[in-house]
Formats: sequence, structure tokens, C-alpha cells
Amino acid sequence: MNEKIGILALGHGSRHPHNKEVVNGVAELIAKKYQDTVVHIGFMNMNTPTMKEGLEAFKGSGVSKIVAVPIFLAHGVHTMEDIPMILGISRDSRKTTIKLDGRDVPLIYSEPLGVDELVAEVAFKRAKEALASD
Amino acid sequence: MNEKIGILALGHGSRHPHNKEVVNGVAELIAKKYQDTVVHIGFMNMNTPTMKEGLEAFKGSGVSKIVAVPIFLAHGVHTMEDIPMILGISRDSRKTTIKLDGRDVPLIYSEPLGVDELVAEVAFKRAKEALASD
Repeated sequence: MNEKIGILALGHGSRHPHNKEVVNGVAELIAKKYQDTVVHIGFMNMNTPTMKEGLEAFKGSGVSKIVAVPIFLAHGVHTMEDIPMILGISRDSRKTTIKLDGRDVPLIYSEPLGVDELVAEVAFKRAKEALASD
Repeated sequence: MNEKIGILALGHGSRHPHNKEVVNGVAELIAKKYQDTVVHIGFMNMNTPTMKEGLEAFKGSGVSKIVAVPIFLAHGVHTMEDIPMILGISRDSRKTTIKLDGRDVPLIYSEPLGVDELVAEVAFKRAKEALASD
């Protein structure tokens, strides 16, 4: 049996619905493509589930590790200060351990999306779509 | 001669350097891969060039159209209200015309990155990297 990895897709949250739609949509695409993962979402503010509720959603899933992935383009105050504080990860450490179904489960904090050919590809695709609909 | 398209990569701006690094890095990747484009960057706040300065940077480039691409994951107050106001685009319209070297040049506003397989791919890559370095 393969090890099952939990992915907690972390969103900023917004009073508009779009941020949640994007975080949720990206989480669904990951879950669909990588079937050894269990994916949940959690928001910093203004939307639910919260990040803590997102972590609790892994109860009963049997994941051996959880990676919290900020669905943010770049590091900033939120990814470097607010989210580590919410998740109980020190600013230097990139990990902690949480209790899940009575087990100790490592919670690892990943980098945000950052500079990547694939991000450039999506941005260029949006430009082409805008030109095509002009 | 192919038509040259201008792409203005729009960033949020941040008091940390990371947002500018990501917007700039993504802009450089687009410019490198799509050589019929002229790419400049512009920030909403806290970084320079501003969006207006970014538009002025197309002077002398000979671009026939400019697409302003929000390097934002999702729509929100910034992409729906603040940026259209800065660019002089009405909330309903997705375009305007600017004067560049004495010519009228269409300025078209694209969608932000949004839900995309490639965004999911990058997020999963960050999760894998975090696991590998654990």
C-alpha cells in the first residue's frame, strides 16, 4: 500500500467568492490527478473552512504526512508571519507535528507558487484569451 | 513582420521583495519564451514601476496592442476595482485606448491566473519539494 500524503491548500480568503473558487478548484485538480493524495483546503480569513478546520478534515484519512501549500503567488507577510503563526510553525522551522486520530503526524510547510515556467505559461494563456475575445 | 504585442504584467506590490521578484521573474520568462512580445511590469502599490510607468515603458516599442495581465491568482477587490480604476478601464468594459508615440493603442485587460491545471501542477511541485527536503 502506498503512503497517503495529505495536502492542505491554504488560501488567503476574500469577501468576494473568487479566491475560494480558485483555491478550491486547484485543490480539486490536485486530488483528481494525484490519487495518492488527500486534499483539503483552509483559509486565513474571510472564508471557511479555516486552516485549523482544514487540518481537522484529515481525521480518519490515514495520511502519514501533511504538506501545507500556500496557494499564494509569492511570500509576503501572510506566508511568512500570519500562516506560520496559525499553523504553529516557527518562522525558522518549516515543520511541526500535529495530533491526528491519536497519532503524531508531521505537518510540513511548502513554498508558495513562485517563479515557474508554468505560471508564466498560464499568464500568457490569459493574455492570448483576452486578445482572442477582443 | 509579425505584429508585436505588449504584455504588462500587473503586480500587487509588497513591502517584502518577493512579490516584485515573482512578477518580474514571470515577466522575464514570458519575454524569453514569446519573442514577439514586449513585456513590462507595473505594481498597484508599494513597488515601482507603477502601472502607469509600466505603460509608458512601451513608448518606442512599436507594439500594436497591450494586454494587461494581473499576476494575481484570483479576482478580488484589486483586480475588479482598484486596477481598472488605475488603468482607466470601466468595470464593465475590458478595454480602453491609450496614446503611445502619438498613436491610439488598444489596452486590453485579461483575467487573472485562476483555476488551471498548470497552477495545480506548480502547487503539487511545491508540495513534493517540501516533502523531499523533509
